[in-house]
Amino acid sequence: MSERYDIAIVGSGPAGLSAALNAKIRKKNFIIFGNKELSGKLTKAHEINNYLGFYRKSGKEIQEEFNNHLKEMDISITEERINTIYAMGDYFALMVNEKMYEATSVILATGVQYGKLFDGEERLLGKGVGYCATCDAPLYKDKIVTIIAYNKHEEEEANFIASIASKVYYIPMYIEEVEVDASIEIIKDTPLEIIGEDKVSKLKLNNSEIDTDGIFILRDSISPGQLVPGIILADNHIEVDRMMKTNIPGCFASGDVVGKPYQYIKSAGEGNIAGLSAASYVDSINKK
Amino acid sequence: MSERYDIAIVGSGPAGLSAALNAKIRKKNFIIFGNKELSGKLTKAHEINNYLGFYRKSGKEIQEEFNNHLKEMDISITEERINTIYAMGDYFALMVNEKMYEATSVILATGVQYGKLFDGEERLLGKGVGYCATCDAPLYKDKIVTIIAYNKHEEEEANFIASIASKVYYIPMYIEEVEVDASIEIIKDTPLEIIGEDKVSKLKLNNSEIDTDGIFILRDSISPGQLVPGIILADNHIEVDRMMKTNIPGCFASGDVVGKPYQYIKSAGEGNIAGLSAASYVDSINKK
Repeated sequence: MSERYDIAIVGSGPAGLSAALNAKIRKKNFIIFGNKELSGKLTKAHEINNYLGFYRKSGKEIQEEFNNHLKEMDISITEERINTIYAMGDYFALMVNEKMYEATSVILATGVQYGKLFDGEERLLGKGVGYCATCDAPLYKDKIVTIIAYNKHEEEEANFIASIASKVYYIPMYIEEVEVDASIEIIKDTPLEIIGEDKVSKLKLNNSEIDTDGIFILRDSISPGQLVPGIILADNHIEVDRMMKTNIPGCFASGDVVGKPYQYIKSAGEGNIAGLSAASYVDSINKK
Repeated sequence: MSERYDIAIVGSGPAGLSAALNAKIRKKNFIIFGNKELSGKLTKAHEINNYLGFYRKSGKEIQEEFNNHLKEMDISITEERINTIYAMGDYFALMVNEKMYEATSVILATGVQYGKLFDGEERLLGKGVGYCATCDAPLYKDKIVTIIAYNKHEEEEANFIASIASKVYYIPMYIEEVEVDASIEIIKDTPLEIIGEDKVSKLKLNNSEIDTDGIFILRDSISPGQLVPGIILADNHIEVDRMMKTNIPGCFASGDVVGKPYQYIKSAGEGNIAGLSAASYVDSINKK
């Protein structure tokens, strides 16, 4: 049986980190999923002037301050990408490909996806379009699979699926050099539309078109509706109250994923609330 | 006619300051009321560990960082205490004793009062109990007035009222040395209860009792219901939505005054939202 955490925090931007500080201070047994870069959006920021206390620092410099803070408080980030979170009643099951984590309470701080969905993506979701290649790999034995990857670390997933599928197309949406197994065909082109009647048949790109049975779109964050079945959204964001509660008991959310304005300190402030709300929730469950 | 500001921010704690940064960035003509100490609560904090980016800093050190940030962005604090804010329709009138400020939009960031009301305070409010000595001074010509002061800067108010009343008792609730006019009687004792049927007649203290016609309680912050007639409260806090809107169009609120948790970064995050919401509101009014 896997360890049952008090709190699982999904996301390592300002909202997730701020939640983590409070989980730590409240002495909860918690885990925070994300990546060591913390937040891609943050590290790319040129200059930030409205994070009270920091003036004219770059995203990188603020990232460093955050990293120091984490180090001093002995908080480390677990580099896994959660694919789905199931509310099991008195706990949550967080799925990471073949692994599962358990937690009494969950804080969603996954940020927002930038850029819109591809044409056809939503309509064909679950009909050949998916967000977790490893999860759905068995469905594509001896079939043609296309992977649209937004991060270099997806190359591993591509290699894995290549061992099952008959053919893998790999479309990198990042600038780093691509290093995948030789059997994989790399396509450097911009996807435009996913085509198919009842199921995916083709991917149309800017300069080409490919026949494919499945398309995995591996973005840095999964849409919250996909991530947590049953969660209520409003305007594409997770609906929360002022204590950062979602409609699912024990599930809290904070940061960009709950709505605008998309601002670092707004996210950090909400993460603080979510962290404290989750700690209180855990206390109330443990008292029962 | 007085200058019409775009935004008036009331309070110089993390919520007010964070709102100010955003008002500045959005190029609004704003004014922020508070004091150069920024926040009494903050400066007294021993060590703060959950303001993301700052680790193991004292309140004083964080105050310094905030002050640097303000200085760099050329934001200065107007040291006035707003007594009442009237919603006039398309603008707000902010009353400071005999002066008045005008603003299209208002952000309330006044914090919370610590300590509870005195027995009898609420019942006798407006019946001899008041929060603004200068405002009500004419009512106490040749009468006995008692001032309960939480801050040294109230001494000026005591001196002023002493020029009108027949007798002034001054009860300092702060530790600094008291320097008031010789005519004022200083009482170093703890007030317990305000006594009177239809109007104030006595103040009961821990070790004594004094006859008085009026009692002014000069706390660092006024309760929001007193400050803004017509504002809707919930559980003694100002009711806001997630964009920090109150029930009064153009009036926003953030920080401790809108509810728990009472945390610096939560306040700063909400101040950010309030600042941006007020800026948008001003834009929408100016477009009309």
